[in-house]
Amino acid sequence: MNEIELRELLEQVKAGNIGPDDALNSLRRLPFADLGHARIDHHRSLRTGAPEAIYGPNKSPEHCVSIVAELLDNGTGPVLLTRANDEQIDAVLQAHDDATVVGPTVLWRAATPRNANIVVACAGTADLPVADEACVVLNAHGVTPTRLNDVGVAGLHRLLAELDTLLDAEVVITIAGMEGALATAVGGLSAAPVIAVPTSVGYGAALEGVTALLAMHATCAAGITVVGIDNGFGAAMAAIRILDLRDRS
Amino acid sequence: MNEIELRELLEQVKAGNIGPDDALNSLRRLPFADLGHARIDHHRSLRTGAPEAIYGPNKSPEHCVSIVAELLDNGTGPVLLTRANDEQIDAVLQAHDDATVVGPTVLWRAATPRNANIVVACAGTADLPVADEACVVLNAHGVTPTRLNDVGVAGLHRLLAELDTLLDAEVVITIAGMEGALATAVGGLSAAPVIAVPTSVGYGAALEGVTALLAMHATCAAGITVVGIDNGFGAAMAAIRILDLRDRS
Amino acid sequence: MNEIELRELLEQVKAGNIGPDDALNSLRRLPFADLGHARIDHHRSLRTGAPEAIYGPNKSPEHCVSIVAELLDNGTGPVLLTRANDEQIDAVLQAHDDATVVGPTVLWRAATPRNANIVVACAGTADLPVADEACVVLNAHGVTPTRLNDVGVAGLHRLLAELDTLLDAEVVITIAGMEGALATAVGGLSAAPVIAVPTSVGYGAALEGVTALLAMHATCAAGITVVGIDNGFGAAMAAIRILDLRDRS
Amino acid sequence: MNEIELRELLEQVKAGNIGPDDALNSLRRLPFADLGHARIDHHRSLRTGAPEAIYGPNKSPEHCVSIVAELLDNGTGPVLLTRANDEQIDAVLQAHDDATVVGPTVLWRAATPRNANIVVACAGTADLPVADEACVVLNAHGVTPTRLNDVGVAGLHRLLAELDTLLDAEVVITIAGMEGALATAVGGLSAAPVIAVPTSVGYGAALEGVTALLAMHATCAAGITVVGIDNGFGAAMAAIRILDLRDRS
Amino acid sequence: MNEIELRELLEQVKAGNIGPDDALNSLRRLPFADLGHARIDHHRSLRTGAPEAIYGPNKSPEHCVSIVAELLDNGTGPVLLTRANDEQIDAVLQAHDDATVVGPTVLWRAATPRNANIVVACAGTADLPVADEACVVLNAHGVTPTRLNDVGVAGLHRLLAELDTLLDAEVVITIAGMEGALATAVGGLSAAPVIAVPTSVGYGAALEGVTALLAMHATCAAGITVVGIDNGFGAAMAAIRILDLRDRS
Amino acid sequence: MNEIELRELLEQVKAGNIGPDDALNSLRRLPFADLGHARIDHHRSLRTGAPEAIYGPNKSPEHCVSIVAELLDNGTGPVLLTRANDEQIDAVLQAHDDATVVGPTVLWRAATPRNANIVVACAGTADLPVADEACVVLNAHGVTPTRLNDVGVAGLHRLLAELDTLLDAEVVITIAGMEGALATAVGGLSAAPVIAVPTSVGYGAALEGVTALLAMHATCAAGITVVGIDNGFGAAMAAIRILDLRDRS
Amino acid sequence: MNEIELRELLEQVKAGNIGPDDALNSLRRLPFADLGHARIDHHRSLRTGAPEAIYGPNKSPEHCVSIVAELLDNGTGPVLLTRANDEQIDAVLQAHDDATVVGPTVLWRAATPRNANIVVACAGTADLPVADEACVVLNAHGVTPTRLNDVGVAGLHRLLAELDTLLDAEVVITIAGMEGALATAVGGLSAAPVIAVPTSVGYGAALEGVTALLAMHATCAAGITVVGIDNGFGAAMAAIRILDLRDRS
Amino acid sequence: MNEIELRELLEQVKAGNIGPDDALNSLRRLPFADLGHARIDHHRSLRTGAPEAIYGPNKSPEHCVSIVAELLDNGTGPVLLTRANDEQIDAVLQAHDDATVVGPTVLWRAATPRNANIVVACAGTADLPVADEACVVLNAHGVTPTRLNDVGVAGLHRLLAELDTLLDAEVVITIAGMEGALATAVGGLSAAPVIAVPTSVGYGAALEGVTALLAMHATCAAGITVVGIDNGFGAAMAAIRILDLRDRS
Repeated sequence: MNEIELRELLEQVKAGNIGPDDALNSLRRLPFADLGHARIDHHRSLRTGAPEAIYGPNKSPEHCVSIVAELLDNGTGPVLLTRANDEQIDAVLQAHDDATVVGPTVLWRAATPRNANIVVACAGTADLPVADEACVVLNAHGVTPTRLNDVGVAGLHRLLAELDTLLDAEVVITIAGMEGALATAVGGLSAAPVIAVPTSVGYGAALEGVTALLAMHATCAAGITVVGIDNGFGAAMAAIRILDLRDRS
Repeated sequence: MNEIELRELLEQVKAGNIGPDDALNSLRRLPFADLGHARIDHHRSLRTGAPEAIYGPNKSPEHCVSIVAELLDNGTGPVLLTRANDEQIDAVLQAHDDATVVGPTVLWRAATPRNANIVVACAGTADLPVADEACVVLNAHGVTPTRLNDVGVAGLHRLLAELDTLLDAEVVITIAGMEGALATAVGGLSAAPVIAVPTSVGYGAALEGVTALLAMHATCAAGITVVGIDNGFGAAMAAIRILDLRDRS
Repeated sequence: MNEIELRELLEQVKAGNIGPDDALNSLRRLPFADLGHARIDHHRSLRTGAPEAIYGPNKSPEHCVSIVAELLDNGTGPVLLTRANDEQIDAVLQAHDDATVVGPTVLWRAATPRNANIVVACAGTADLPVADEACVVLNAHGVTPTRLNDVGVAGLHRLLAELDTLLDAEVVITIAGMEGALATAVGGLSAAPVIAVPTSVGYGAALEGVTALLAMHATCAAGITVVGIDNGFGAAMAAIRILDLRDRS
Repeated sequence: MNEIELRELLEQVKAGNIGPDDALNSLRRLPFADLGHARIDHHRSLRTGAPEAIYGPNKSPEHCVSIVAELLDNGTGPVLLTRANDEQIDAVLQAHDDATVVGPTVLWRAATPRNANIVVACAGTADLPVADEACVVLNAHGVTPTRLNDVGVAGLHRLLAELDTLLDAEVVITIAGMEGALATAVGGLSAAPVIAVPTSVGYGAALEGVTALLAMHATCAAGITVVGIDNGFGAAMAAIRILDLRDRS
Repeated sequence: MNEIELRELLEQVKAGNIGPDDALNSLRRLPFADLGHARIDHHRSLRTGAPEAIYGPNKSPEHCVSIVAELLDNGTGPVLLTRANDEQIDAVLQAHDDATVVGPTVLWRAATPRNANIVVACAGTADLPVADEACVVLNAHGVTPTRLNDVGVAGLHRLLAELDTLLDAEVVITIAGMEGALATAVGGLSAAPVIAVPTSVGYGAALEGVTALLAMHATCAAGITVVGIDNGFGAAMAAIRILDLRDRS
Repeated sequence: MNEIELRELLEQVKAGNIGPDDALNSLRRLPFADLGHARIDHHRSLRTGAPEAIYGPNKSPEHCVSIVAELLDNGTGPVLLTRANDEQIDAVLQAHDDATVVGPTVLWRAATPRNANIVVACAGTADLPVADEACVVLNAHGVTPTRLNDVGVAGLHRLLAELDTLLDAEVVITIAGMEGALATAVGGLSAAPVIAVPTSVGYGAALEGVTALLAMHATCAAGITVVGIDNGFGAAMAAIRILDLRDRS
Repeated sequence: MNEIELRELLEQVKAGNIGPDDALNSLRRLPFADLGHARIDHHRSLRTGAPEAIYGPNKSPEHCVSIVAELLDNGTGPVLLTRANDEQIDAVLQAHDDATVVGPTVLWRAATPRNANIVVACAGTADLPVADEACVVLNAHGVTPTRLNDVGVAGLHRLLAELDTLLDAEVVITIAGMEGALATAVGGLSAAPVIAVPTSVGYGAALEGVTALLAMHATCAAGITVVGIDNGFGAAMAAIRILDLRDRS
Repeated sequence: MNEIELRELLEQVKAGNIGPDDALNSLRRLPFADLGHARIDHHRSLRTGAPEAIYGPNKSPEHCVSIVAELLDNGTGPVLLTRANDEQIDAVLQAHDDATVVGPTVLWRAATPRNANIVVACAGTADLPVADEACVVLNAHGVTPTRLNDVGVAGLHRLLAELDTLLDAEVVITIAGMEGALATAVGGLSAAPVIAVPTSVGYGAALEGVTALLAMHATCAAGITVVGIDNGFGAAMAAIRILDLRDRS
């Protein structure tokens, strides 16, 4: 309930059309749907520009199905189920089969295409599943990103060969595990907002992504921002926030 | 040296105006100045939209003075000295006194004012030095941010009282130590790009900012990005990258 | 053996009814039952108001059965088996089938209902198993809590819509993984004792609950207390200690 | 602004006494005072039963003085300045000299005495500064605790000699550094709510309190809760929350 | 090869019975058997009083069989295979069936019984597998320990009931997971050498034994020593070193 | 593209044989093959002396087959697939069966034998899989190392018996888990370059190799270098870099 | 109060010489002296064979003086003040000047000399302060240890030159920072009980002693035990426990 | 004492020129000098090619002076005092003033110049003190390295401008703090042995060098080796080991 709606509600109270008790109740009935096990936040879409995405782990297949149904029936935007396991995917596809499935991510009702030049750069082939998650979330919002696969810093010329692509980008999502140096290199080459995603790729001293996360934060390149380990979803959502700002200007 | 310059160089070689050896030398003489102890990267300004900022720690006052001189003399943009100690500040002010000093940050030649609605929200008064760093770096780029001080999550109404400010913001920089929950709350309220800065404020379990950094990455709010601990400079630079994208669109 | 019993014992010695050697033996025979593999502490119930709960991991099904039998036969209060695996649950139910099973927790002989207004607030649906453990332990002590599911801080209005519930609560148990910000928000809204339970929900930077635990301890809200990661049992027991104080006053 | 006040406001709008715009402004003017550098939350006292305590670190002496003045002039409850340095203490005492100073804590306007049996048990003499902080915060709320100093687990009989004191306690605050075992032992002896405070006492493997914090969370005694490292303030505030519940019942 | 043997060798060289080249070879042929994949150190038994124990993990069943054979054939003392998996146990029992199997530990040729009063005290039933490992290693050296199961600090009277046993002990091995407080309590009660074994029992903040290990090192009881997490083998070997000293005195 | 090629390209431009646009394209077409999912860097072999090795994890068997094919068809040097799982190994062997398989490593087209005295010393038999990886990588480059198995520091004479071998070595790769002390001992005995490999062997306080890694870095022996946990591949590659230097001198 | 005294007390109650109330009081008056700020445990000396040592940090000089006085006046054994700062040392020496001062340790009333062959072996000269603490604590108990300085593993022959000393030792205390490998080497050479002390010597990856502590626990030498970082006091106390066992046998 | 000397000794015993007892003593009198507080290892120079360097911390100025004297008087190679404080430097210069002082490092009797092409590449100016330590240690061994200052990855063209220098290098020492990405970039560009030195430069997430250390180990560039944090000395010694191999071939 934004300021305009609040003002309108108060006007109605003033006009006597709505009694104070009813107004109080209205203020409480913010637009979310209580399914018992979950509260679907239709309002958040208006407020933050992002649909409610369903985070799969620890939910029963039945819960997933009912939340997806609520979002498809009572919302209008894209619907995403992330980090789903096979059982969850089978259940939701049986109930709502008009979906796109990319690894453990399921997408219904992608937004209409939108003009944007977003680059998703990936250090190694082992990072591809994280890049896939970022890309399907971007797709959900109507964005088709440019992908640069396997451009890690150990072979700098592979990255430099794509310099034009980087210079043209509006946002660059850099995805890297191990030591995560790709973020620093891209941050030094491109003037665009750079969103770094550490991945859990690597073993031993890679500490399941903690090393890359720390390294990306300790970067000597200025103005890079970082999301959580393997969080392709978060990186895509951050890019969408930036695109939305671009478009509202 | 961007693509256009490279093409021009090659045209000159073709026309015989420049010999191959000279061209080779030109390719090597990329626009940085080698002071012996440091390589001033005038080119980075063109490439990433950001001037070279001087990170004070471990540099002698004399080095600081000479780098500032190089940047003021042979560059045109704003010049920043960050994390400087008293001795360094005294030395650079003696050499170049037309500066603004905010805590340990020194600014010369701020850019002309630029239209932007950036909010710098600070959880507690102890976080203010980090907010100050972010603000002076924004000033350097011509931006005067809106500041929200002392709006931590333990007193939610203080934050909610500023909801309109948050909804109007183009970028929100949220600065918080301890458990860093402000970032999550702001991320759920605002559709703008949210840049979270964990601070080293707090003691014991705050682990000098590591707790806030981890918590901001583990946030349940989608699309928040994070910079390093106490890195007000980095957050401001990330905001400038986003503004630059807005303006180039 | 409390002071009154000790005094009585000494009176018996004085009266010559009990010889010193027997008294010495009595002092040694404190009321626990030694099953060989375990020492059942019937006395603790008197001393701390809590029954002996059986922690399942690393115990054989046979051991579980014999401890449950000892507690049911020689005690009078509720009996709990926690973190049990399927094999253990099958074994104890075969031996004692009058039980309530909630996930990996088994309850026999719940206490008679008791008047108490305890709220169990859960940040996300993935935290529900921990909330379930807390609730069945409260049930064991005769308490039926009010549950608030899916009220995480990223959608503040969902939490604020339950403000009255929080203001009426006698104790609030807040359960959250990821960055655990719910505890801080609740602590700022409610005057009641707030017990925070970090959960292992989340991935990457959530560090299997360590991030939430640290964040809850670094909270800027005063007077919140914390129990171990995923420790719904401990949170419920802490709430019972508080209720017992209320009732003895 | 609680529900009653909100209802009254809406009644005034309905009656035409307050226009919608003014009501909107009222909703925004929640009762805190904005000093520029800090927002004094007079309302929190009503909401959570706790006064705003001033956390000293990173504040200038002048800021401390002005916040203390705001709280003394426009509030009615006790006022606390914690973790203050000498310079801050000198400044606030010069402005408001009717204070009690205990180590780095300053207290004005302690509440009238209140009946409560709170025990503050301290493992070693090195933990006393943390116990002092807890005690002065309890004093601020009208409580005079019973102190047990130097009752660490390495000399169990010292603890057992105080068994009666522990059995009579309404709340026990146990303060211990090093391995923090006191909390477990007290938790097994007493039925009262037990609040454990890990301290940074010890060296090497004590890891500045992290070991004690982890150990207290890994305790095998049920229903113990924990606050942050060296957080005597937080432990006292948690005890006050429990006392308030006792008194409202 | 100890000093006496070295002197003898040199005498033989002097007497001309052994040529320098042969002596050199002798010095190289220290008494271990090289099986290619492993070097069996028959000499260590003489040097440190301990037989070579075979650590199972990462060894093939065939390697286990051949090492056991070498030790049984060319040694005279007890032979231990530890942390063996089912496949390894099956293989070695098929080859050498005169063994005692306790969980993942296999023992051949236990030493003749030896007089010793060693107490193995275990905090909870979940720690029993570690205690079992310690006990079978003690058995290997002819020692039958006294076991105290389930005497954790949360029920102090269970421990105090065994005070006489502790006071009579020559060495106490205390085994505890979670917060590991048993070691401190025993260290304060007994004058004997106390060897503490942290176990990986517990979840969340127990950090798979790291919490108990740190807590045991941060203990406030003087003169306790600690072995590695779950290292019942190491604790038993340390006890044997102490017994050997007692007997050589 | 090295300096000579760049100079030649510029000469061609000068001579008019190549137009600037074509030159620009040439500069972009550095010698790697883009398979879509991976960029095969044939050039790196020329630049760093090492072939592209394929890191198996997270790659589909089909991807592995296609990368191996690219490297075999369009390269000339040895080809390595490391950390492959059974499915990957089956797939690549079906396509290219002229391979050597050592555990999870597959080697095609080993280089011709090369004179080198490299010692691979292994602390325990549990470290052998890491040593095997190092050895097959050395084999790929034509080197047959001398292996010293089971020479851990707990039995110093086993190590000292091989002193001559260590003194003759050109490079020593020391592989050890647990506390990793072998590296320090070898570093003090040998003048050769010593490359230490921490392994994840051990349990509890070994922290899956982190302890050995830290210990090797904290070594008191001067001039030892370290590679990542279990990184036999990296150690071998570092040895090859040293051999290449020896041979180019 | 041991069993004999308890029996006597009960006999007195039986005989009517002591009334139950008085007996109850006696049971409470266990032999410690309550100084208010500290409880001096004279009884512990009888129980664990160790005097109360005073840990200096966080105690005021006045507190130190009064505790020392209590121990000297009402005890008979050695008195130790450890980790004292200059101000504390000045204060206690002014009050009780018949002391031995070794670095930050002060000793009064050393026990009469006792026959014991304890070796204190130190890896490097930087570890000497920790060795000094161990030695003065041994002196307090009448033991004059043999010291081996600077025998770190990087120069194995320095250690091997002292093999006879190690073989003759009854207990070996090995003190080492950095990677702590000395403990493993000594453990493999000597059959005596080996007590390892990690020190905070080293920088960077030595992690202020945590690396050495972990390495000593991950050791491949069987039967080594470890005390806390820099805990020379604890190592000496553990050695005394072992000597006491030797002497009581 | 190497094999040749041992053989000679045995020949002398055979010839009757040396008695067995004397031989035994000779075997014990390995060539180190025992100064009481330190054992100077003159032999290590022969064995490992490196002189004994004196690590300053925790040594008294007098000890430093005496160790330097021993090394200058009874050795012939270069002598280094590292990590010395001002007081230590003053003391040793007063005694032996023919020294070179570079920051906290003092060098006497540098070796005669030696042909070697070693590059010391430094990411930022803040890393220069570590590079200085590496360089003076190289100087001690007769090597004058090529220095590349301020070539961090955030400005890739600064590094690429020095590609020829990197391609010509025999060994590259890369020194970087923060995220340490320089090592990966250099490792991908150069075929030479690359030794990476993480530094403690940076703040917050740089974790005092731990982040750079982990990142360098998790690098995706093959064959890089790493030394400890800020360990310029160790990197130089590793380079010397490699040069020695080159020269002995």
